[in-house]
Amino acid sequence: MSSLFPGEPEGPIVKTEIPGPNAKAAIAELNEVFDTRSLNMLTDYQKSLGNYIADPDGNILLDVYAQIASIPVGYNNPSLIKAARSDEMVNGLINRPALGNFPPKDWADVLKSGILKVAPKGLDQVFTAMAGSDANETAYKAAFMWRRQHERGGAHVEFTEEEMSSAMDNKSPGASQLSILSFKTGFHGRLFGSLSTTRSKPIHKLDIPAFDWPQATFPALKYPLDQHVEENRAAEKAALDEVEHIIKNYHVPPCAVIVEPIQSEGGDNHASPEFFRGLRELTRKHNILMIVDEVQTGVGATGKFWAHEHWDLPHPPDMVTFSKKAQTAGYYFGNPELRPNKPYRQFNTWMGDPARAILFRAIIDEIERLDLVNNTARVGDYLYGKLEVLASKYPDQFDNLRGKGMGTFIAFDNPKRDQFLAVAKKFGVNIGGSGQTAVRLRPMLIFQEKHADILVERLENIVQSL
Amino acid sequence: MSSLFPGEPEGPIVKTEIPGPNAKAAIAELNEVFDTRSLNMLTDYQKSLGNYIADPDGNILLDVYAQIASIPVGYNNPSLIKAARSDEMVNGLINRPALGNFPPKDWADVLKSGILKVAPKGLDQVFTAMAGSDANETAYKAAFMWRRQHERGGAHVEFTEEEMSSAMDNKSPGASQLSILSFKTGFHGRLFGSLSTTRSKPIHKLDIPAFDWPQATFPALKYPLDQHVEENRAAEKAALDEVEHIIKNYHVPPCAVIVEPIQSEGGDNHASPEFFRGLRELTRKHNILMIVDEVQTGVGATGKFWAHEHWDLPHPPDMVTFSKKAQTAGYYFGNPELRPNKPYRQFNTWMGDPARAILFRAIIDEIERLDLVNNTARVGDYLYGKLEVLASKYPDQFDNLRGKGMGTFIAFDNPKRDQFLAVAKKFGVNIGGSGQTAVRLRPMLIFQEKHADILVERLENIVQSL
Repeated sequence: MSSLFPGEPEGPIVKTEIPGPNAKAAIAELNEVFDTRSLNMLTDYQKSLGNYIADPDGNILLDVYAQIASIPVGYNNPSLIKAARSDEMVNGLINRPALGNFPPKDWADVLKSGILKVAPKGLDQVFTAMAGSDANETAYKAAFMWRRQHERGGAHVEFTEEEMSSAMDNKSPGASQLSILSFKTGFHGRLFGSLSTTRSKPIHKLDIPAFDWPQATFPALKYPLDQHVEENRAAEKAALDEVEHIIKNYHVPPCAVIVEPIQSEGGDNHASPEFFRGLRELTRKHNILMIVDEVQTGVGATGKFWAHEHWDLPHPPDMVTFSKKAQTAGYYFGNPELRPNKPYRQFNTWMGDPARAILFRAIIDEIERLDLVNNTARVGDYLYGKLEVLASKYPDQFDNLRGKGMGTFIAFDNPKRDQFLAVAKKFGVNIGGSGQTAVRLRPMLIFQEKHADILVERLENIVQSL
Repeated sequence: MSSLFPGEPEGPIVKTEIPGPNAKAAIAELNEVFDTRSLNMLTDYQKSLGNYIADPDGNILLDVYAQIASIPVGYNNPSLIKAARSDEMVNGLINRPALGNFPPKDWADVLKSGILKVAPKGLDQVFTAMAGSDANETAYKAAFMWRRQHERGGAHVEFTEEEMSSAMDNKSPGASQLSILSFKTGFHGRLFGSLSTTRSKPIHKLDIPAFDWPQATFPALKYPLDQHVEENRAAEKAALDEVEHIIKNYHVPPCAVIVEPIQSEGGDNHASPEFFRGLRELTRKHNILMIVDEVQTGVGATGKFWAHEHWDLPHPPDMVTFSKKAQTAGYYFGNPELRPNKPYRQFNTWMGDPARAILFRAIIDEIERLDLVNNTARVGDYLYGKLEVLASKYPDQFDNLRGKGMGTFIAFDNPKRDQFLAVAKKFGVNIGGSGQTAVRLRPMLIFQEKHADILVERLENIVQSL
């Protein structure tokens, strides 16, 4: 197996404690002007390469966290350097357009050869955004406008005076009394609308005003999935029954449900394709929209370009949101009714960033050139197999191993999770957590068998040290 | 007077109707995948230069709209090209950090030599964001956390079980029952929290759920300001009385008030320094925060780097938000209590974009090199003087001329405003509107007397044609 990233280090190098003396000095300086309490590791990006992240003290770690799952094709990827040095990129950076008003003459081409080239099946339109939160929130806005247009009797029906005046006062009927249904332990962002659908941890939500929007139980499956088929099916049926009950009865009626293919921040919670097909069926039955949040699962990590391709849906989702590994953001849709009936209803000054759209195009080219989605599927299976062996040796340390067949989107629970994450750096691995107890693996798409071997070896070292 | 932008066209060139045949074909293609109903002009950014915007049919217009007031130092500015081609920029583009977890080793330096170098007086901290909407919303989040911390008795007081469980359900007390007070005809963004404070037009708000947050009347001043001192003072006093009444009585208590130095999208509505000093006094009296939204007014446009420098405040604002001409975004603050009491309360994956932060630093350098804030102050006075002459010749066409002493941040009302804007392109000028009837001038900071001469000549041509 040749290397997908020539010139990478052979393995991690740990020279000092982390943070070492250089990092400590720089962190102290940074803390004067920027909150550093969530700082994980001060990074030397110039020295980071491929799957390896470097720090200012000469430490080089195998990075299976990848900037919270958002580095797609490796640090200092030569193809991305080339794209970043192009005249087109310079133009996108320094002449930033208001895309809704003054799109560049080749914006259709940038979209079609980039963002839209990888559009999920059935979705051929895009609204571009800046990050996961506003991608989700603009999708919600599209959902509210769509539903109210239906209730109003169609796109041609004008707004009433009462609607217009009450909207200005944040009151109904102009401000709709509708909701977005989300799942417990789901994560969809941290701005006010997206945070109202986020149900990950109290620390994300405390003190922030929230909309009275409903949450449904996400099925709490038992792992490995293939050994708990019956009880998992029952849990999923109960969850779908709860969804339907909420759709029919919640006092602020949902016009859409948003769901992650794998709940990521919430602890790597999986559900079966049958569950998602059932959810799609329910949303169609009750004429509400299904928004799939692929901010963390999208762009190849699960061994498909989009994780919802695992579901074999009979009808595509209404909207699919993306960010992170795309390095840009937005929502895909197909139904023309999801274009609001008038201009300037879905609008903002920048509506995304062409520089970042150009970068996503280069990322897509690199994924295709190196066949990285298939790589991730294959390496994920390899890694999962090795983790199964570890889990049989240390069952308490690698509890609820999950993500089989889902590329490298793998996680397990550890009883000393926070300590596990902290000590991992000593063993040369940068790794993240999710939920209360999960260790989540989020390698880049260029993660290969040789990296899996190193990772598994270090994971064993870590648990032996705990 | 030498040219601030060597190589610029001598003047506008209008070769075809706009859109011309090339633009029409490209717009039709774009419309297949991207909503083009708000499209103003398809743009050839490669051919745009300095104050001049080009289109694919060879038309070149003097641009006093500047991507909705967001181009600071001219299209294809050589200093920005140089910054965009730097290794540092390439690194920022392709190795995008999760800034809260893995900041680059030189992030303190990037901030101090860029964003923080121009921090408003008294505000030495920054939380970086992506665009105006999330800059405002993260400022709101900081305000809610700050106020609840005070109510709770300090940073050391732990959250209660009830707070934590109710927050997860979007319910009080965990989700606070507090509000942000904004002004009628103000604009603060289009995501759910920011849109709840935006009061510009129904089309911006219709069908989107909103928080039950209060609005106060913005004083409706008469122009020219120096001829209506007494009645304007009375209007401002009434507005401040209303603000105080709302602070004391609104059933969802405000923890902050947000205000634009000049209401921009809402129609270029001015208020006096006394008004803003009164507002600052009221917010301090009632222990609520004052957030100044400098998204459109900031970065030199008003002849000061920040428009609120015109006010001579005895105490700085609590937070100042920025975006647009900064080409990045965020909020400044000074009070250490505005750092939430625990990590991960104010956090997201990217927390801004270092590539855009590096660009802002280059913009700041260019502003300093060319002394562009003073340029804008001087040219603004020159332009205003010429517009006063026009207004005396065509009083109905240049009604309520305003922005005296506020750099090039100038506007007037026109009875056929939409037609005015549409026909302007025929006369070689790209120009925008605000509110219902205003024509707003938003030239770049490199706008000089010679451009003002051309603009004034064309404005006369436009009104003669209406």
